[in-house]
Amino acid sequence: MGASQHDALQVAHILLQADLRGIKTHGLMRLKEYYRLVKLGKIQPRATVQLMHETPSTALLDAGKGFGMVAGKRAMDIAIAKAETAGTGWVAVRNSNHFGIAGAYALMAVPHDMIGITMTNANPLVAPTYSMKPLLGTNPMAFAVPAGEQPPFVADFATAPVARGKLDVLHLLGKSSPVGLLQDEHGNPTVEANILMRNGSIRTLGGHVETGGHKGFCLSAVVDVFSAVLSGANFGPTVIPTLGYLTGDNKSEKDKGIGHFFGAMRVDAFQKKEEFMKQMEHWINEFRKAQPVAGQERIVIPGDPEREHEEKHLKKETIPLMEEVVQEVLAIKEELGVKAAF
Amino acid sequence: MGASQHDALQVAHILLQADLRGIKTHGLMRLKEYYRLVKLGKIQPRATVQLMHETPSTALLDAGKGFGMVAGKRAMDIAIAKAETAGTGWVAVRNSNHFGIAGAYALMAVPHDMIGITMTNANPLVAPTYSMKPLLGTNPMAFAVPAGEQPPFVADFATAPVARGKLDVLHLLGKSSPVGLLQDEHGNPTVEANILMRNGSIRTLGGHVETGGHKGFCLSAVVDVFSAVLSGANFGPTVIPTLGYLTGDNKSEKDKGIGHFFGAMRVDAFQKKEEFMKQMEHWINEFRKAQPVAGQERIVIPGDPEREHEEKHLKKETIPLMEEVVQEVLAIKEELGVKAAF
Repeated sequence: MGASQHDALQVAHILLQADLRGIKTHGLMRLKEYYRLVKLGKIQPRATVQLMHETPSTALLDAGKGFGMVAGKRAMDIAIAKAETAGTGWVAVRNSNHFGIAGAYALMAVPHDMIGITMTNANPLVAPTYSMKPLLGTNPMAFAVPAGEQPPFVADFATAPVARGKLDVLHLLGKSSPVGLLQDEHGNPTVEANILMRNGSIRTLGGHVETGGHKGFCLSAVVDVFSAVLSGANFGPTVIPTLGYLTGDNKSEKDKGIGHFFGAMRVDAFQKKEEFMKQMEHWINEFRKAQPVAGQERIVIPGDPEREHEEKHLKKETIPLMEEVVQEVLAIKEELGVKAAF
Repeated sequence: MGASQHDALQVAHILLQADLRGIKTHGLMRLKEYYRLVKLGKIQPRATVQLMHETPSTALLDAGKGFGMVAGKRAMDIAIAKAETAGTGWVAVRNSNHFGIAGAYALMAVPHDMIGITMTNANPLVAPTYSMKPLLGTNPMAFAVPAGEQPPFVADFATAPVARGKLDVLHLLGKSSPVGLLQDEHGNPTVEANILMRNGSIRTLGGHVETGGHKGFCLSAVVDVFSAVLSGANFGPTVIPTLGYLTGDNKSEKDKGIGHFFGAMRVDAFQKKEEFMKQMEHWINEFRKAQPVAGQERIVIPGDPEREHEEKHLKKETIPLMEEVVQEVLAIKEELGVKAAF
């Protein structure tokens, strides 16, 4: 699509990591959408990432409307380097695009004995508490924590109760959404899985105020502020949608892309590394051995399901892809005249 | 109770700030409980806070089992000072106690044109997804963001769907809890508001897995790791309960108190201060003017309700207290032989 080999490999690496970890909605399935956005000029494959400002523990990057993965990798590299010298490193990115799974960047910190943190804002699909319209993205956060002899703790989650991809799948299967997740264009509750395409919204994590939905709003808002206001990207309702069915009238807004926020904290910038690792192992052991409710086998440690997918696929030396996705990728290969065997 | 005047004033300041901001559950109402814990030796009023380790952007404090407010203020002062020179500052605290409202510390960063961040772990009352027993606290987070001409954005929220204090009030009024928040000692759903006193648990934010409860678990777990594992405090199920009705068998655990985590980020460590303030004003304006659903007057900007309480009370130069709380405080004054007029 015009990207340098270096940048193309970075995009491929993050997409394949999603498929490897069993997060199909963020894997090679996305290539078709990225290609559409490249053709529309929304993603600039030849963009260069620019360092705009820095302090001993921070930096601001402008992604130049390139692939989010290229800026994301660069940002996390800088955060890790700053953490080496300053104890922690924090990098905000503006003018960017979708960067794939948030967890991939957070995980980069772990081999350095650091905690990794990633956030991003996104297309407005989530209605804040009491709002009729969607003003926030599903705004994921990821935290990866090294744990000594244990595999790392990796929490990688949208701050909305359900992902858009999951709703698409429910709709394709002719199923309804669980109660309490969605509202229609008037703000009334609905279980219609394709309501986002008709001006509906996802509700915040926690649902109604009585069940803590305003806390979910706070959390999504914080991700928006850290990702987009610290960096100078388009925030919440001012994000220029990349989804065809979002018709937000943002023509008056400058397009500064979406924003991300990355962090790395050396665990020994706080207590001794050995003490931290021992205690994090203890944490994981305590939760792993806790008694599950009837009908459940275990308490799931964040990161375990994705790691189990990864181990299974690596053992078989294969990543299963859906036939439709393979066909989409082959069609793009054909159209671009890519010669490499595949 | 034996604290120095300096430390006593700090505790009083944070408790009164809660009452001033309308958060009665964290105000002077807590004094009775603190006094009980002082008499039990669980809170050491004469403790000194010790700096254990530091890097350019981080520090670790040991609170010596003192009042959480004393360590909290010291930690936030250090975080702000580190942010002045390194761009950001991050301080973990161990061996501490309850510190009042998380938002009070986050707000300390705002006059310095910094974003303030606060977290703490707490008594185990929350059952992770699929867990029969409570293993995590209600683990609040607070974020305070300066916003130029607008009052600051202040999100201060427990990562559990409901606060223990709220359940106590429902029980006193003979009311049930909303559906989906609680489970009994076998992990079965219940609406009995006093179930925590009978080995029940609060569920995570989001409730069931279908409505995103595993995301709430991730969030509470991250607060626990940042507050207690980074610092070396007692984490999740190993917290020695301060509540009489929690009978967790933690006798094998060393008591390293609870842990907190504080952060300060200079907004101009990322983009220019003026640009940030303008954009944060824009953020607040966009959300304030958004259309509410039928029956609601407005979208609530995080921090607005507490600020409105504060303005109302400051105007009247009075903070209303419940008669029971006044009587409790007077009884403690009597018992301690405090002579000051009151």
